[in-house]
Amino acid sequence: MAAEGMTPEELEAALQAKAQETEKQADTVRAMKAKKEEKAVVAAAVDKLKELKKELAELTKAQAASDTAGADNKQVFRANLNKVLEQNLFFIPSFKIYGGVGGLYDYGPTGAAVKSNLTEFWRSHFVLEENMLPIECPAVTPHCVLKASGHVDRFLDMMVHDMETKAFFRADHLLGDFLEKLIAAEKDAAKKHELELVLARLDEYKQEELGALIKQFDIKAPETGNALSEPYPFNLMFQTQIGPAGNSIGFMRPETAQGIFVNFKELLYYNGNKLPFAAAQIGQSYRNEIAPRAGLLRVREFTQFEIEHFVDPEDKSHKKFKRVADIAFNLYPREEQLQAKGTVKLSLGDALSKGIIANETLAYFIGRTYLFLEKAGIDPERMRFRQHLQHEMAHYACDCWDAEIECSYGWVECVGLADRSAFDLDAHSKASKVDLTAFKKFDKPIETEVLQLDPQMKEVGKVFKKEAGLVKDALLALSDEQKTTMQAQLEGAGEAELAMESGTVKITPDTVKIKTVKKKISGKTFTPGVIEPSFGIGRIIYCLYEHSFYTRPGSEQRTVFRFSPVAAPIKCTVFPLLQQQKFEESTAQVAEALTRAGLSRKVDETGASIGKRYARTDEIGVPFAITVDHTTLEDNTVTLRERDSMEQVRIPLLEVAEVVRCLCEQHISWKDDVMSKYPRQEAKEE
Amino acid sequence: MAAEGMTPEELEAALQAKAQETEKQADTVRAMKAKKEEKAVVAAAVDKLKELKKELAELTKAQAASDTAGADNKQVFRANLNKVLEQNLFFIPSFKIYGGVGGLYDYGPTGAAVKSNLTEFWRSHFVLEENMLPIECPAVTPHCVLKASGHVDRFLDMMVHDMETKAFFRADHLLGDFLEKLIAAEKDAAKKHELELVLARLDEYKQEELGALIKQFDIKAPETGNALSEPYPFNLMFQTQIGPAGNSIGFMRPETAQGIFVNFKELLYYNGNKLPFAAAQIGQSYRNEIAPRAGLLRVREFTQFEIEHFVDPEDKSHKKFKRVADIAFNLYPREEQLQAKGTVKLSLGDALSKGIIANETLAYFIGRTYLFLEKAGIDPERMRFRQHLQHEMAHYACDCWDAEIECSYGWVECVGLADRSAFDLDAHSKASKVDLTAFKKFDKPIETEVLQLDPQMKEVGKVFKKEAGLVKDALLALSDEQKTTMQAQLEGAGEAELAMESGTVKITPDTVKIKTVKKKISGKTFTPGVIEPSFGIGRIIYCLYEHSFYTRPGSEQRTVFRFSPVAAPIKCTVFPLLQQQKFEESTAQVAEALTRAGLSRKVDETGASIGKRYARTDEIGVPFAITVDHTTLEDNTVTLRERDSMEQVRIPLLEVAEVVRCLCEQHISWKDDVMSKYPRQEAKEE
Repeated sequence: MAAEGMTPEELEAALQAKAQETEKQADTVRAMKAKKEEKAVVAAAVDKLKELKKELAELTKAQAASDTAGADNKQVFRANLNKVLEQNLFFIPSFKIYGGVGGLYDYGPTGAAVKSNLTEFWRSHFVLEENMLPIECPAVTPHCVLKASGHVDRFLDMMVHDMETKAFFRADHLLGDFLEKLIAAEKDAAKKHELELVLARLDEYKQEELGALIKQFDIKAPETGNALSEPYPFNLMFQTQIGPAGNSIGFMRPETAQGIFVNFKELLYYNGNKLPFAAAQIGQSYRNEIAPRAGLLRVREFTQFEIEHFVDPEDKSHKKFKRVADIAFNLYPREEQLQAKGTVKLSLGDALSKGIIANETLAYFIGRTYLFLEKAGIDPERMRFRQHLQHEMAHYACDCWDAEIECSYGWVECVGLADRSAFDLDAHSKASKVDLTAFKKFDKPIETEVLQLDPQMKEVGKVFKKEAGLVKDALLALSDEQKTTMQAQLEGAGEAELAMESGTVKITPDTVKIKTVKKKISGKTFTPGVIEPSFGIGRIIYCLYEHSFYTRPGSEQRTVFRFSPVAAPIKCTVFPLLQQQKFEESTAQVAEALTRAGLSRKVDETGASIGKRYARTDEIGVPFAITVDHTTLEDNTVTLRERDSMEQVRIPLLEVAEVVRCLCEQHISWKDDVMSKYPRQEAKEE
Repeated sequence: MAAEGMTPEELEAALQAKAQETEKQADTVRAMKAKKEEKAVVAAAVDKLKELKKELAELTKAQAASDTAGADNKQVFRANLNKVLEQNLFFIPSFKIYGGVGGLYDYGPTGAAVKSNLTEFWRSHFVLEENMLPIECPAVTPHCVLKASGHVDRFLDMMVHDMETKAFFRADHLLGDFLEKLIAAEKDAAKKHELELVLARLDEYKQEELGALIKQFDIKAPETGNALSEPYPFNLMFQTQIGPAGNSIGFMRPETAQGIFVNFKELLYYNGNKLPFAAAQIGQSYRNEIAPRAGLLRVREFTQFEIEHFVDPEDKSHKKFKRVADIAFNLYPREEQLQAKGTVKLSLGDALSKGIIANETLAYFIGRTYLFLEKAGIDPERMRFRQHLQHEMAHYACDCWDAEIECSYGWVECVGLADRSAFDLDAHSKASKVDLTAFKKFDKPIETEVLQLDPQMKEVGKVFKKEAGLVKDALLALSDEQKTTMQAQLEGAGEAELAMESGTVKITPDTVKIKTVKKKISGKTFTPGVIEPSFGIGRIIYCLYEHSFYTRPGSEQRTVFRFSPVAAPIKCTVFPLLQQQKFEESTAQVAEALTRAGLSRKVDETGASIGKRYARTDEIGVPFAITVDHTTLEDNTVTLRERDSMEQVRIPLLEVAEVVRCLCEQHISWKDDVMSKYPRQEAKEE
């Protein structure tokens, strides 16, 4: 296949194959030379190697050209898309008449409708289908909760500022941008590689390292060229005061998850003290970004859909896993990333049996997430589940996968699926001093050996006198581990130390007996593990816009969104052919029938041509359009048109709303049901 | 009817009737005396009057007793209700394990489900049905927006603090509580009345008046008895910083409405530049209450459903008004309040034709709001629409009505319906310097007279030399009013003054010609009026809890919520009779069928008795319950039970989910369809 005809993915695959072939041939040549084989044979092998190297160089060149063209195309595509999105009020820069505020966007009527459609779909796909416990907590959160969760101390970005203008920048973004330019300009392969290694670790640099690198590369403030401050931490939470006293710090929550964790005990009780169960929350979260960019992808206020699935850490099986086990899609496991390979298409059952995904529950949610995104309208070929590398994960996490969606900004993290172990519950239990454990009864009681400690109170009284009571309390408060140590000391040295508030006292074998006894245990007490799927719906919606946007062949101005009826902001448009009363009555009748069928509709009564009105309806991705025309007045039928095929049928006015409802709920299909049942109408679109 | 058997409402009605009868009899007696009628006749009339006065006194006494008992009953009722609500996680005090935060509550699984049910119902009843434009704006709002809206300067409560402990109080609440106690203890009728007048004006007192009254009554801090500070204003908005620079003040929005107003121009364009149209927003609002009380009714973070209906101020008719014109319900017009009368039951058509409600659009939304509340499950007899008194309304408002719902806290404002005129758009237009007007084309152009001003440039040049251009600009910038004045001055005094930046110059008839000319005008430019229905869904939900809560006769412990299927948090419970595998399989089959039918369900597989499991399901208001029992294993039928009647039928397992779906969507009724079609089952509930 000629390089010029290839898609970027095909080019990448061809390049990798060629590189491997070349490497192998080089090995062959070296082996031949080592074995001192015949000159002619070696020469032929060398010729072949030369040929391969030439082909490799061509492919590399083609990829570079394609990347540049791709980048340009992406810029143009995104500019076109954003123009259509903003013109049709999918989004509006918030407070636009006051000049806007960085990182804040409104959902206009079309965008808000897409969002509430996907919200309802998510609720049905996860909360209803999985019988989750919905919950809604306030965004205003007191300091103590976010101190315990770690956000007060660790929810930071490193910031630098222009020493003259006081303009602020994220230190890692500045360094990254600088390195990318340097790499692009660098001709020396070794130096280029060195710079690439520095860039690859961008996410890991701490405050001092960032400062050193900014100094090393002598990075100046963009635009002004002024000197920069040292990097310093900025907490990304919006801070406020709760109440009038001025001493009660609160924050706008940076994630909805904490509201679920602090309610764990109540939810467990509500669930009949049984595990596993999941709670789900839909709500706003807030991140006071230093310098928001990347448009709708990095914003200061956004809606999260978060699920916390609480589970026995020793049993992460999932009852319904078999239902998703055979679904296969793009996974990008740790191993493939480290070896710089591409994604693999694997079934979840295989990924689990090969040990790639840590457990059944996590795999189940990965599968359900895939199905949600696919049904919402995300292109499965531009979606992958990428496993976090070891250093990306928090120290407590067992396994993390991000659902990443490809768009003009590259691969964007849209859903995080993390096995967070018992970290959050432990943290809140410690800080609140409230027990956040669960109890699981064994099928049969288990007999086990425990250490039993009996203070010998007669002797204790003699030795410790007035302190006897305190010594007794301290002895009874010892943990199993401390009892073991004390037993060993008493048996070895004949005495042991006991730490008390007033100091350390000496304990002898006379004052305490420690012995191993058998005990029946009816169950176990443990802190549940948490598996957390967390959805950034705004990012999913933006990627959906990119994946759904196209222009009619041969007519660059006619843009279309191929939204599925699930996502489409409006399900059906209704037009009277002409602005005359006789048409308007039937139009109103159809519009009312659509409303009664629970479908959002838009009536376009402007005098614009039918072609123009179809174009308008395509531009916001309305899947169906109904025209009331001259024929309607004769036989009470209307024209029904499907957006993507632009096919039209004639259909009785009294049936049309019900047919559109069935199409939207995907009980019937346009091709198989509508086109075969109703007479086709000659399409006339300008 | 004996007073002791009456409800408070009947007592009130009897009292009013008796008072009128007594008044009339007194008139009769006076008339008789004036006419000097026969002594015996007059004496009989006087006896009757005495009898009436005695009966009136008895009724008055009964009412006083009933009020006290009522207050006690209300306390007990509310305590019982709140216990059930909190135990079943309708709400949870937020951050409970950390001791909670005043005025912040979570919706637990049951409460969150009720809330999302009502949200969906509202969306369908208003946004879909009325074809409104949905919109979603961030809660983080920059200072400039809330300065323009008036919130920075006027969204204040007056606060006092304990001079020793620094505890904070709302000055009006403190004064109100103090006056209520004083009034209760006051025996002298005249003094009591005087105090009541002071209390009645509580909402109106400004900072200084509050301070003077607190001094006058020598009010001290509650509990400590310490001296109080002077009252001072506290802004109820949560303040924060946007971005890292520290110079960009933001607030968490106190209402969602402003996000719609600032987008008016975009929305008008989206609507094809046509009026009227409405935009709707569902979202969180924030009020940093000084000292939250009244439980779930006064909270610091809450969800608002707000509609802004933009309309030509000269045409507030509504196309669909006739659909609600005949609905009659409790209205409490201004006139009735001023005359201390009760509510009147009036149809909206009558209220409009009598001039009680200001316009058709406002009346339409009052009607739609009534229908929403009634369908949600609010008792129509404990709901009224109260018109604001003149002094309650903002100066710019034309007419305001509150939907008030009666609960144990009294009459609670749950929805505000206000005709806000053009105030908000004018304020934002002025502050942002962006035109926020609409243009309406007349059916036919109108010919009208306008003043045309022509600077005579030759003469202007001669007189003003280098300044001629500036003078010309200043002349052309004159408003119609200024032109009229100048014309009058030129004709009268023969000269006029023109204000310029550099000072005032003298204009003579030679330098400018002003004449009246005829001009065709094709339409008018105006700032639209706004009619705003604003729903506090949290308050509606709390009142719904009160109106739905009851106990089974003869069994005080068995509490029930009579939620309609629209509101019910869970639509159906499923029980296996016994914890055995043979029952569990059919149970799982029913549960799956319910999920497929889109119904939330709960499976109760505990070993508790059937009676106890029905009681649990009643306690959270689940309307239907299905039991899988021995008969199921024989003939594949299950028991279906309706919550309020406790009636049961046997119904085929394969049909039951569909029947429950039809019941929940209210396509069929329990009494008429289910009981008549399926065999009745002997009810056995402990």
